[in-house]
Amino acid sequence: MSIRRNKISVIGSGFTGATTAFLIAQKELGDVVLVDIPDMEKPTKGKALDMAESAPVLGFDAKITGTSDYRDTEDSDLVIITAGMARKPGMSRDDLVKTNQIIMKAVTSEITRYSPDTTILVLTNPVDAMTYTVFKESGLPKERVIGQSGVLDTARFRTFVAEELNLSVKDVTGFVLGGHGDDMVPLVRYSYAGGIPLETLLPPERLDEIVDRTRKGGAEIVNLLGNGSAYYAPAASLAEMAEAILKDQKRVLPAIAYLEGEYGMDGLYIGVPAVLGAGGIEKIIELDLTEDEKKSLGKSAESVRNVMNVLE
Amino acid sequence: MSIRRNKISVIGSGFTGATTAFLIAQKELGDVVLVDIPDMEKPTKGKALDMAESAPVLGFDAKITGTSDYRDTEDSDLVIITAGMARKPGMSRDDLVKTNQIIMKAVTSEITRYSPDTTILVLTNPVDAMTYTVFKESGLPKERVIGQSGVLDTARFRTFVAEELNLSVKDVTGFVLGGHGDDMVPLVRYSYAGGIPLETLLPPERLDEIVDRTRKGGAEIVNLLGNGSAYYAPAASLAEMAEAILKDQKRVLPAIAYLEGEYGMDGLYIGVPAVLGAGGIEKIIELDLTEDEKKSLGKSAESVRNVMNVLE
Amino acid sequence: MSIRRNKISVIGSGFTGATTAFLIAQKELGDVVLVDIPDMEKPTKGKALDMAESAPVLGFDAKITGTSDYRDTEDSDLVIITAGMARKPGMSRDDLVKTNQIIMKAVTSEITRYSPDTTILVLTNPVDAMTYTVFKESGLPKERVIGQSGVLDTARFRTFVAEELNLSVKDVTGFVLGGHGDDMVPLVRYSYAGGIPLETLLPPERLDEIVDRTRKGGAEIVNLLGNGSAYYAPAASLAEMAEAILKDQKRVLPAIAYLEGEYGMDGLYIGVPAVLGAGGIEKIIELDLTEDEKKSLGKSAESVRNVMNVLE
Amino acid sequence: MSIRRNKISVIGSGFTGATTAFLIAQKELGDVVLVDIPDMEKPTKGKALDMAESAPVLGFDAKITGTSDYRDTEDSDLVIITAGMARKPGMSRDDLVKTNQIIMKAVTSEITRYSPDTTILVLTNPVDAMTYTVFKESGLPKERVIGQSGVLDTARFRTFVAEELNLSVKDVTGFVLGGHGDDMVPLVRYSYAGGIPLETLLPPERLDEIVDRTRKGGAEIVNLLGNGSAYYAPAASLAEMAEAILKDQKRVLPAIAYLEGEYGMDGLYIGVPAVLGAGGIEKIIELDLTEDEKKSLGKSAESVRNVMNVLE
Repeated sequence: MSIRRNKISVIGSGFTGATTAFLIAQKELGDVVLVDIPDMEKPTKGKALDMAESAPVLGFDAKITGTSDYRDTEDSDLVIITAGMARKPGMSRDDLVKTNQIIMKAVTSEITRYSPDTTILVLTNPVDAMTYTVFKESGLPKERVIGQSGVLDTARFRTFVAEELNLSVKDVTGFVLGGHGDDMVPLVRYSYAGGIPLETLLPPERLDEIVDRTRKGGAEIVNLLGNGSAYYAPAASLAEMAEAILKDQKRVLPAIAYLEGEYGMDGLYIGVPAVLGAGGIEKIIELDLTEDEKKSLGKSAESVRNVMNVLE
Repeated sequence: MSIRRNKISVIGSGFTGATTAFLIAQKELGDVVLVDIPDMEKPTKGKALDMAESAPVLGFDAKITGTSDYRDTEDSDLVIITAGMARKPGMSRDDLVKTNQIIMKAVTSEITRYSPDTTILVLTNPVDAMTYTVFKESGLPKERVIGQSGVLDTARFRTFVAEELNLSVKDVTGFVLGGHGDDMVPLVRYSYAGGIPLETLLPPERLDEIVDRTRKGGAEIVNLLGNGSAYYAPAASLAEMAEAILKDQKRVLPAIAYLEGEYGMDGLYIGVPAVLGAGGIEKIIELDLTEDEKKSLGKSAESVRNVMNVLE
Repeated sequence: MSIRRNKISVIGSGFTGATTAFLIAQKELGDVVLVDIPDMEKPTKGKALDMAESAPVLGFDAKITGTSDYRDTEDSDLVIITAGMARKPGMSRDDLVKTNQIIMKAVTSEITRYSPDTTILVLTNPVDAMTYTVFKESGLPKERVIGQSGVLDTARFRTFVAEELNLSVKDVTGFVLGGHGDDMVPLVRYSYAGGIPLETLLPPERLDEIVDRTRKGGAEIVNLLGNGSAYYAPAASLAEMAEAILKDQKRVLPAIAYLEGEYGMDGLYIGVPAVLGAGGIEKIIELDLTEDEKKSLGKSAESVRNVMNVLE
Repeated sequence: MSIRRNKISVIGSGFTGATTAFLIAQKELGDVVLVDIPDMEKPTKGKALDMAESAPVLGFDAKITGTSDYRDTEDSDLVIITAGMARKPGMSRDDLVKTNQIIMKAVTSEITRYSPDTTILVLTNPVDAMTYTVFKESGLPKERVIGQSGVLDTARFRTFVAEELNLSVKDVTGFVLGGHGDDMVPLVRYSYAGGIPLETLLPPERLDEIVDRTRKGGAEIVNLLGNGSAYYAPAASLAEMAEAILKDQKRVLPAIAYLEGEYGMDGLYIGVPAVLGAGGIEKIIELDLTEDEKKSLGKSAESVRNVMNVLE
C-alpha cells in the first residue's frame, strides 16, 4: 500500500476554473494545479497564491499552484477542462465551435502527454461536442471522458423550486436528460420535494415556468452580470463530480456520457443519468421514456449532432 | 426562546465582497444580503443568484440576495464593509483617503439606519482610518466596530512558513501588531510551527525574508494579477472573524480595535490581539513588548495617525 | 440584535443521549447540557467531560456539561428526550408504557419549569404515545413537541438499498408513514435512487425483503449486540432534526406530529412528512394515499391508540 | 493513475475502537473494517451496522463492516490497534503488560499477514511498550509503527486551559514529551493561547494544577464513569493521526516514535513531536531541553524501560 494525495489539474484559470480549483482544495480532494496559456501565467499564479493564502484560515491542506507548463500536470488523477472561448458579438456559432475544438485538441494533447491514464471532466461549451472532441483526441476509454451540464441544470431547477416552496434545497431534486440549456430535456416526473413528486405540489403552469427559467438559467446570469457568465454554480457542479470520482462514491448524477446503443443512440455524447465512481462513468442508467420524452431527447440529440457536424 | 437564523449583510459586491458572502453562506452562518450601489444592482443580483444556485450542490441552506436597497439589510446581526475605491494611477493617497471616507460615511449611515444595534467589520483601505470613520459615524460602542488586517497578514505569513518547512498550514501560527502591510509589526517570537518557536526552526535571514514577503503580500498578488487585487484570502479572513462573532467562539484573533489606553495609546484604531465573540471585541490582550517592538508599534501608530489627519 | 449561541439539553445520558449530545456539539449547533438522574450524575459528567476533551482535536467550539440538576437546562432552545426504560424480560408492554409515561411526565415537568417556551424532541419508546404524553404534560403548542422515528426508519431503508444497488447513500431516499418499527407504513412508490423510483430498479420481492428488514431494523441490531440497542443511527436522526430546527432549514423530514384532521385522524401523534424549521413542525404535508396505504395507516393508528389507551 | 478509496482496519470493537471507526468514516477517510475476536463477532457486526445506518443521515460515504476474520482486513492502508485488556482489580502491572503483549503479538501477526506493507497506530496501554511490541513483531520500518498518547494528553490540557481562560479550544495549544499519563513531560513553555505563552497568562500554581489534572486526566474520567474509561477523546486523537497520515498532511503532532539517537536515547518508543504524513512518522523534531526537562524525560524513559523489561 502506498498512501498518496490525489492530484487534480484544472485547465483554464478564468472565474469558473479558479473557483473549481478553490472548491476542490477546500474539500481536500488533493493538490490542485491551475493551468492557463503562457500569456496568462502571471495572473494564474496570482490566483493560485491567493487561494493558497486562504488555506490556513479556512483550515484545509492542499497545494495549489498556477502554471502555464503542462509538465506540472504530470500524473494527474483527474483533469478538468474549463478553457475555451465564450461566444463574442458577431461570432457565428460555427466559428465558436471550430475555435473551441482547436483549443480542446491542443489542451487534450498536452494533458494526455503527461497523464496518459487520467480521467477528464469537460465544461467547455458547446459541451456535448467538446466532450466528444476530447474523447477522440485523448484516446482514453469512453468512461474516462465525461462532460458536465446536468448537475448545473438541476442545481438551478432545485434552487427555483426550493425558493418557490420555501423548503431546504437539500430536499428538492431535479432530473434532466439531453443537451445543455435550450436542449435540456427536463423529466419533471422524476423531480421531488422531500420525496413527493413536484407534479403534486405545484400547478403545471408554475412548473413550466420553472423549467423554462432553468433552460435559460445561464442567460439569466449573463444578462444580470452584464459582462461575463456564471461561475459559482458551474464550479460547484464540477467539484461535486470530481468528488464522486476521487472518493469513488458511486453517486447517481446526470453526466454527459458517450452512448453506444443506450437510449437507442450511438456515437455521440449527451446527458444521461450515470453512476460516477473511481472508474469514471461506471454505469449509464436507462429509463423508460414516454413518447413525448423520446421525441424531446431525439430533438436534443439532433441538435448535438448538428454541432458535431461542424467539427473537423 | 425564539430560534432564528442570523442575517449578515456584505457591503460591496466586488470580488472580495462576493467571495465573503459565498464563504459565509457555505458555513451556514445565516442568510446573506449582498449590497452595492444602484448602478451595480444587476451584477450584484447576478452574483447572488449564481451563488444561490450552487447551494443544492454544495449542500448549504442560506438565502443569498443581491440588492442596492439598504432596507433589505434591516436587522442585520453583522455587517461587513468591503466597499470603497482602490488607489488609481495618478491618485494621491490623500485623495484616496477622502474618497473612501465619504463612502464609509454614506454606507455607515445607511447600515445603522436599518440595523442600529449591529456589529460592523471593516476591510476597506486604509483600514485603520476607515474603521475609525465607521466607528465615529455609526455611534456604535467601540467593541462593535472592528477592522480586519491581521488575520490576512498572518495567513500569508503562515502560508510562506508552511511551504518553507513543508508542514501543514494547520500547525503554523503567526502574530502581528500594528497597521496593515508596510506598517505591520510582526512578532516572530510569538510565531510557531507545531508549538515550536520559528526562531529555532529557521535562520534569522530567512525569517526576515518571509516577514518582508508578508509585508508586501498584497502587492505580490496585485503584481501577479496585473489587474485587481487579492480576494480569496481577504474574504476567508472576514469569514473567520464573522464566524467567531456569530458563533460566540471567543477566538483569539488579531483585530483592528479602538484603543483607550491599551499599549499606551488612545483614540485610534490599530491592530492588536483580541478575543472575538458575540460581544464583538470582548477583550484586548496586552502583551509586554520589547523596546524594539514598542518603537515599531509607535511608528505604525504614527503612520495610522498621519492617515487620520487627512480625515475630515 | 443580540447574538447568542443556542442551548440544547439532552435528557438521558445513555448511549443514544450521549451520542446525540456529541453529534450536536460536533455540528456546533450550540452548547449542550446532558442530563440524567442523580444516581447517574457522575457518569453523565464523565461522558460530558470526555466529549469536551475531544473538541480541541475535532475542532469544534461547544460547551458540553453533565448534570442531574434541571436548573442547568434553563432557557434551552431545544430539549431532546432520550430517557426511559427499555423493555425487560418478563415485563409486559403495558408496564413499559406506564413506567415510561411516569418518566416522561416527571422529565417534562422539569423541562418546562426552566424552559417554558422550548421545543421538545422525543425518542423514548413507544414513541408515538410518549410524544403525546410530553405534549399533554408540557402545555406547549403541538408544533413544538415532535417525535422521532421516520428519519431512523428511512435511514435504515436507504442503507439497505444503497448497499443492494452499490450506490452512494446520498442518492437513495426512502419514505415512511405511521408508527415506528412493526407499525411502519413504507411508501416505496415515494422512494428513489438518483431520482429513479426504486420500483423500477428492484424486483418487488427484493423490495419487500428490504422493507421487512427495515421494519425489524431495531431488532436486528438488538440481536447482534446481545446487550443493548442501536444508538449511532438514532442519535444521528435526532441530530438531523435538531439541526433542521435550530438552523431553521425548512427540511422535509418524516416526524411524529400531532394530527388534528390531517389524514382523517384526530387527537393522536403519528408519523407523517413534515416541514421542520425554527417553528418546530411548520407544516404537515398531506399526500393522496391508495386504498391499501390508507388501510395500513389506519392499522398503524389503531396500534398507536391501543398504546394510548394504556396511558393514565 | 488508479483512483481508489483508502481502507482502514480498527482492531478492537470496544468503545474506543468503535468510536474511532465512526469518526474515520464520518471524515470519509476511507472504508472501515472493525475487527474483534470471534466471541465478539456479533456485537462487532451490530456496531458496524448501526454506524452504517447513520451514514445516510450524516451524509458520509464509507463502508463500515464488522468481522472477526482478518482476511477482511486485506490490503489495509492503515491499521489502528485499540484491542487489549484494561487493568483489573487484583491484577499486577506486570501481568497486564504480559497479557497485552500476547494480544499485540497475535494481532500484529494477523495484520501483517494480510497487509504486509501497512502503517500501524497503537493505542493499547502501556502504550510505549505495546507500540514497541508491535514494531518488533511486525517487521515494519520504524516510521510505520506509531503510538498515540500526546494528542490525547494535549487535548485534555487544551480543554482545561480554554475553560480557565474562557477562550476557544481552537486557539489553545499544548505540548508534551515522554510517556503517557503519570510519565508525561509537559512543556508548558511551548504552550500558548492565541500564540501567547501560557506562562504569561496564568500564574504558575494554576498552570501546575492544570498540568496535574492533565496527568491524571484518564483517571478522572475512569472515576466519574465508575465503570469503563474515556473513549471520545482517545478516538478523536486516533482519528486525527489517521487523517494526517491518509491525507499526507505533514501535521506536527506528538507521537510515540522509535528513537535511535534522538534526544540522546536509543532503542525505545517514547513520545516526541513528529511530522505525520503519508510516510508515517516522516520526521522527529528535536528540541533543546532545559536541564529540568532532560531530567524529567530521562525519568519518563526509565519508566518506559521498566515496562519494557517485563516484555518477553
